[in-house]
Amino acid sequence: MSREGYILTERDLRALAIGAALLGTGGGGNPYVGMLRTRTLMRAGAEVRIVPLDALPDDVAVGVVGGIGAPVVGVEKFEEGAECLRALRAVEAASRVTFGALISGEIGGANSMEPVITSAQSGLPVLDGDGMGRAFPEVQMSTFMIYGARPAPSAVADEKGNVVVYQQVLDMYWLETLARGTTVQMGAAAGFAIAPMRMDFVRRTAVPGTVTQAIALGHTILEARARRRDVIAEVCRAANARVFFTGKIVDVRRELIGGFARGKAVIAGADAWAGAQAEIAIQNENLVLWIDGEPAVIVPDLIMNLERDTGEPITTEMLRYGQRVAVIGLPAHDLLKTHAALKVVGPAAFGYPDLVYRPLTAEGAAA
Amino acid sequence: MSREGYILTERDLRALAIGAALLGTGGGGNPYVGMLRTRTLMRAGAEVRIVPLDALPDDVAVGVVGGIGAPVVGVEKFEEGAECLRALRAVEAASRVTFGALISGEIGGANSMEPVITSAQSGLPVLDGDGMGRAFPEVQMSTFMIYGARPAPSAVADEKGNVVVYQQVLDMYWLETLARGTTVQMGAAAGFAIAPMRMDFVRRTAVPGTVTQAIALGHTILEARARRRDVIAEVCRAANARVFFTGKIVDVRRELIGGFARGKAVIAGADAWAGAQAEIAIQNENLVLWIDGEPAVIVPDLIMNLERDTGEPITTEMLRYGQRVAVIGLPAHDLLKTHAALKVVGPAAFGYPDLVYRPLTAEGAAA
Repeated sequence: MSREGYILTERDLRALAIGAALLGTGGGGNPYVGMLRTRTLMRAGAEVRIVPLDALPDDVAVGVVGGIGAPVVGVEKFEEGAECLRALRAVEAASRVTFGALISGEIGGANSMEPVITSAQSGLPVLDGDGMGRAFPEVQMSTFMIYGARPAPSAVADEKGNVVVYQQVLDMYWLETLARGTTVQMGAAAGFAIAPMRMDFVRRTAVPGTVTQAIALGHTILEARARRRDVIAEVCRAANARVFFTGKIVDVRRELIGGFARGKAVIAGADAWAGAQAEIAIQNENLVLWIDGEPAVIVPDLIMNLERDTGEPITTEMLRYGQRVAVIGLPAHDLLKTHAALKVVGPAAFGYPDLVYRPLTAEGAAA
Repeated sequence: MSREGYILTERDLRALAIGAALLGTGGGGNPYVGMLRTRTLMRAGAEVRIVPLDALPDDVAVGVVGGIGAPVVGVEKFEEGAECLRALRAVEAASRVTFGALISGEIGGANSMEPVITSAQSGLPVLDGDGMGRAFPEVQMSTFMIYGARPAPSAVADEKGNVVVYQQVLDMYWLETLARGTTVQMGAAAGFAIAPMRMDFVRRTAVPGTVTQAIALGHTILEARARRRDVIAEVCRAANARVFFTGKIVDVRRELIGGFARGKAVIAGADAWAGAQAEIAIQNENLVLWIDGEPAVIVPDLIMNLERDTGEPITTEMLRYGQRVAVIGLPAHDLLKTHAALKVVGPAAFGYPDLVYRPLTAEGAAA
């Protein structure tokens, strides 16, 4: 990609929604509504430019925008459409800084679309990268926060017109706590914008190329379907992923606790895994895959459930008894595997202190 | 009082704490710690000037500061001391307005002291008046909010250094909801500052003279005690109040629900009320007094429990089985009895839709 980047086409937009849903690892919310909203803006003349991380000068102020809330709420409570833009403008006013570019905090799921929508509304370019390379449930779980981004001033805006600014917060955990509390009061879904970051900081700390990666994955899925190829095999080839389990969902438990969907899914094995049993722990996203009691893929590595026949990614809120699924695993980006990162996004951070993270190798097998 | 007002003395400060506790109608938190804090600042050279509502030009920006949270938490979780000042400065920054004076939103209880402390820290004068003439549990229950003060930008600050700004809120109820939510996350106690009001608006909508009234009531109590007079009789004479019941507390129920102390107290009658039974409904403050099932005093009129022998006001969190009490009632200010006000602070607003408010007359008897 040239330093000028590229203008997002409608076809790319559709592919981005599909690829981002896959990288959502079961969470992050559904990008479909955001895709429709962006398409409407594009058809009305809006242009969205995707630019590489080396396109802009060091001192450009970069804004992270995204939705905050429980994905299961997003299914019923749609955004008004300009929540993130209002949050972004509030951060600009509170910080006396004018943003020059946008980036997704979380390429997985609906938050892949929020910078794109806000770009279509504001004209700001979208950087090709994000803060996770996947989806995570909490604000502090991004490479930006892990590597020292300032947590304030940040802002939350709802669809009714309320805007709350976190003018000073002690750290990223307090930002998460306070913003999550506001979001629950607002009805468990809101637009979020985080304090300005300098472009040179973003260049060092973003997971690079993930917008383009998500678009490419989406095109792979669409093309494989159109040509009636094996979608799951094509996805694994394109994403450097591997099938870890196939089978039928025999149990799903989910609870909405403090704005989060927590639970687990149990899968009875089929094909090569006939007679085996897998369990997946869920906290908005798929966190850990056990096969016959042994951990096979562990957060921050990516775990995705795909519908066995169509290759459609299944989000955790859409898991149902009887679904036939393939579970694929994919190594996380190296920025998520440092000591500093594992403290925030490793298994202990999700309540599994005894689970030792063993990274998937490039070949897709557990080391 | 002259338009220059007066400088608060240490003796006045002590009287203010006592009178404000009385006007707290059982709630509003204990002003004692705030009194000690202010005294320390005064002994270090700080001056607090109380000025009447006609002292300052129309365009002066007036700030309301106060604590927000459940009073029962304030008993154990002390403030760091500059929470309200930090919230005030955050509102100044967010509104681009410089405050010229402070006023209490709530003269009853601890919030009588917060503008005094902030005055000692900032040098701003304190206006002689407040937004309630008593205490109420929620942000929107002030004459300022009832008569149209802008609810944003307002701010909350905690003792750890977090500052949250409500940059845009739909109305005073949303301010209450969002600020209450933040306060619960912060540990159920924080400093609060509300959007700037113009002096001419405050002059029309404040309950006037209540700082001086609280100081005078405090002096009355101190003097009656020193001279071994009947404190309750003296208070009734000074405040134009009347004894509605005396007896012994025989039951107290309290729960902390969503940051509020809710409950009821039952009193077995003594003296002229021997054989009768009274019940007081509590939501942080005393809300309704029933005698033998008949409503005798109804919010917004003031209901205070005093210790029978010492005349000491008893806050709702200090009510105990076996206490001997006198229950006195006092008419609320007319600003709290309009149709607009009763929608916000009448019995229906507190969950008693079938209770018809009948104002106490000047003689202290129910009309």
